[in-house]
Amino acid sequence: MAAVVFFLILAVGFAVYQHTSNQVIEPDFDSKIVVDPSKVQGAPSSEVGYRSKFDSPKRIATYETASRTPLEDLQGTITPSDLHFERHHAGIPEIDPSQHELLIHGLVEKPIRLKLSDLKKYPSVSRICFIECSGNFRYGKREMTPGEVCGLTSQSEWTGVLLSTVLRDLGVKPEAKWLLAEGADGALMARSVPLQEALTEAIIAYGQNGEAIRPQQGYPMRLVIPGFEGNTQIKWLRRIEVTDEPVMTREETSKYTEKVKDGNIRMFSLVMDARSIITYPAYPKKIEKGWQELRGIAWSGRGKVTKVLVSVNNGKTWQEAHLQGPVLEKAHTAFKFMWNWDGKPTRVLSKAIDETGYEQPTYNQLVEARESKGGYHFNPVVGWDVEKSGEVYLADIKDI
Amino acid sequence: MAAVVFFLILAVGFAVYQHTSNQVIEPDFDSKIVVDPSKVQGAPSSEVGYRSKFDSPKRIATYETASRTPLEDLQGTITPSDLHFERHHAGIPEIDPSQHELLIHGLVEKPIRLKLSDLKKYPSVSRICFIECSGNFRYGKREMTPGEVCGLTSQSEWTGVLLSTVLRDLGVKPEAKWLLAEGADGALMARSVPLQEALTEAIIAYGQNGEAIRPQQGYPMRLVIPGFEGNTQIKWLRRIEVTDEPVMTREETSKYTEKVKDGNIRMFSLVMDARSIITYPAYPKKIEKGWQELRGIAWSGRGKVTKVLVSVNNGKTWQEAHLQGPVLEKAHTAFKFMWNWDGKPTRVLSKAIDETGYEQPTYNQLVEARESKGGYHFNPVVGWDVEKSGEVYLADIKDI
Repeated sequence: MAAVVFFLILAVGFAVYQHTSNQVIEPDFDSKIVVDPSKVQGAPSSEVGYRSKFDSPKRIATYETASRTPLEDLQGTITPSDLHFERHHAGIPEIDPSQHELLIHGLVEKPIRLKLSDLKKYPSVSRICFIECSGNFRYGKREMTPGEVCGLTSQSEWTGVLLSTVLRDLGVKPEAKWLLAEGADGALMARSVPLQEALTEAIIAYGQNGEAIRPQQGYPMRLVIPGFEGNTQIKWLRRIEVTDEPVMTREETSKYTEKVKDGNIRMFSLVMDARSIITYPAYPKKIEKGWQELRGIAWSGRGKVTKVLVSVNNGKTWQEAHLQGPVLEKAHTAFKFMWNWDGKPTRVLSKAIDETGYEQPTYNQLVEARESKGGYHFNPVVGWDVEKSGEVYLADIKDI
Repeated sequence: MAAVVFFLILAVGFAVYQHTSNQVIEPDFDSKIVVDPSKVQGAPSSEVGYRSKFDSPKRIATYETASRTPLEDLQGTITPSDLHFERHHAGIPEIDPSQHELLIHGLVEKPIRLKLSDLKKYPSVSRICFIECSGNFRYGKREMTPGEVCGLTSQSEWTGVLLSTVLRDLGVKPEAKWLLAEGADGALMARSVPLQEALTEAIIAYGQNGEAIRPQQGYPMRLVIPGFEGNTQIKWLRRIEVTDEPVMTREETSKYTEKVKDGNIRMFSLVMDARSIITYPAYPKKIEKGWQELRGIAWSGRGKVTKVLVSVNNGKTWQEAHLQGPVLEKAHTAFKFMWNWDGKPTRVLSKAIDETGYEQPTYNQLVEARESKGGYHFNPVVGWDVEKSGEVYLADIKDI
C-alpha cells in the first residue's frame, strides 16, 4: 500500500513537472484563466459606454475648487473630457443654453447678443491644444504622482468659432486694444487680453472632443486661447467687452502675477512656457531591471515642441527622446525613450525645448530669476529617483 | 374716464414699443435668465466629469449586438470613447487583464505569450484613425438620422505597439504570408489578414483616446489596422497565428463578402472605400432661411481625403467644401461649407474623393456593379431633402 501511494505521488509530481516545464506554447487559455470570457455570454450594447472595472482612472479631486488630470494613467495626447482638470472659483454653474447669452459690446460698431444656436451659424473650426492653469506645479514630498505634481493641464480638440470671425462681423473700432472676457459663474471670473493676440487664434468654443463642452469646462461656451494661461480662457462665457486698455480685474492684479527681480511684479504673463514631465516611470510605479519605455508629455504655449531631452543618469548626459507625431502647435506632445535599466539607483529627468529656442529651466534658475520658490508660471525641470528596489519617487527639485 | 383709459393704453403701448425697439444693447442678463447662474454657488470638483443635462448625446442602441455613434450630435473628428459604435457577436466580455494573455504563434521562430504589462514594455505609438464596420449603411425611410444611416464608424486616438515591432522580435518564418487574429469573446471572432499589409501599420492597441481601451472596444487589447474593415480589427485579442494562407473562418466565407458581377462573390475586401455624410443639416433638424454652416465628415481607408464635393441643388452643380486640418490618413475628416439657403425646397449632397482618385459612387453605380442593393462595403452618396418648411429628411437613395 505504501509503495502504491509512493508511486502515485511520484506520478503526479512528474505530471506537474511536465506541465510546468512545457516550453511548447499552444493555445491553452483555460488552464490559466479563472473565468474564460469566451465561455460566457457578454454584456449587450448600451447608449453610453463604460470603463473597465480593472482600469478606471479618476481625477485627483482634493479640493472643492480644483481637480487634476491623472497624467500617469493616460497615454497619447487627448485627455478624456471627464478627466480634464478643473479649476473654478465659485463652483460649476448649471447653465440652460436657451437662457444663456454672450454679449459682445464695447468698442465695436454693432454690439450683439449671441445664443448658442446663433454661434453655431458661423463658420466653425476645430483645434487640438492644451489648456494649463498657470498655477500648475506642486512639490514638497517624494510620494507624489505626475498628476499631483503637474496635473493642471489637459488637452482637447476644441470646436467653435474664431473670435476674429465674429468681431469682423461686428466691426472693431480703431481705438480698440484689449478685450475683457467674463464668465457667468458666481466668481464672475474676468480677464483682460490684448486684442491683437486674441484675434490671431482665440476661439469661442462650444465643442470639446467631439461633443458639447462639459459643464466643468465651460458649457455652453468658453474662450479658448491656445497657449495662454488657463484662467484667461474664460468658461461659461457671457460677456466680451472690447476696450482700449486692460480692465485690471482682481485676477490680473492681486492674483495671477509673479514676483521677478528686485521686488518687481510681473503682470499679464499670458503665455505658458515650455514644460515636460515624465509620466512613466513615476511614483507610485515600481519597475523591473531591463527595457522600459520611458514616457511623458511636453508642451509649449509658444508653438511646437521641437525637442525633449531625457537624462537617465541624473543630468550627466542628455539624449533626445522620440516625439510622437503629428507634433502640433501649442499642444501636448507625447515623448518616448527606450531605456535599458541596469538595476542601479538613478534619477531620470526631462527637459522641453520649443521652436522659439526656449529651454525649460531648473528650479534654481527660476528661484534666482523670480526671488520666489513657486507661484504662477513655475515650470522647473522635474524628475524621478529610481531606487534599487525599482520603486520610483519624485526627485528633490532643489537638487536638479 | 374713457379718455384716461385710452391715454393709459397709449402710454403702456408706447413703453412696450420703446422697449422692444430698443437697439442699444447693454448687459442685462437678469431680465432674461430664469435662474442667474452667477448668483448661485456652483457644484464642487469631482473625480469623474459629467455632461450637461441639456446636451447628453447617446448611442443609437437598437440591437443587443450593435450601437451606432450619433454623428449628428458630434463635431470635430474624435469620437468620445463612450459614444464609439459597438458591434459584437456574443456580447462584451469582462476581462481581468491579469488573467488575459495574447498568444503569438504559428510561423514565428519564438512563439510568445504577452500580458498587458508585457505589451507596455515595447515602444508605443499613437495614431488617430477611424474604425468602420463594413456593414455600415442603412436606408429605407425618410426619417433617419446621420447616425442611423451611417453611425457604424467612429474615430479614436489609438495607442499601442506596432505589430511589426513584436513580430521582428519573434522572427517571422519565410513562408509566412497571412495571420489569423482571434478574440476572447464568446464568438471567438477571428479573421485572416495578409501579413505584409498588417505589418505596415497594424497596432496591438491598449489605449483609446488617452485611457485604456473601453470594454466595448476590446479591453484590454485589440488589433487596429488603419483603413481596414472593422471586424478584422479583432477586439479582446487573445491570439495571433502567423500562417501561410488564410484560415477561411466563417467571418470571411459565409459573411463579410459581397456579390459582384455575374453572380461572383468578392472575398477579403479589406479596405474601406471613401465615404462622406452631411451631418448638418440632417433629419431631425429644422433649419431657417439664411446662412447655414453645412457640416459633415468624410473618410477613406486608402489614405487622405483630398476633396469633398458638396451640392446644394440636387447635383446640378458641385462645389468644394473646406476640409478641417490637419487632414490625417485613414481618418475622419471634418468638412464645412457655408450655404445661404434661399428658403426653397432643395437637396444637399456630399461626395468624397481620396488621394488615390477614388470617388464615392452613387447607389445606382453600386447596384450595377454589385447586383445587390446593400450588404458590406456599400458606400453610396447620400443626401438630405430640405423642405420649404425647413424640415430635413433623408433623400431617396435611388434617386441620387
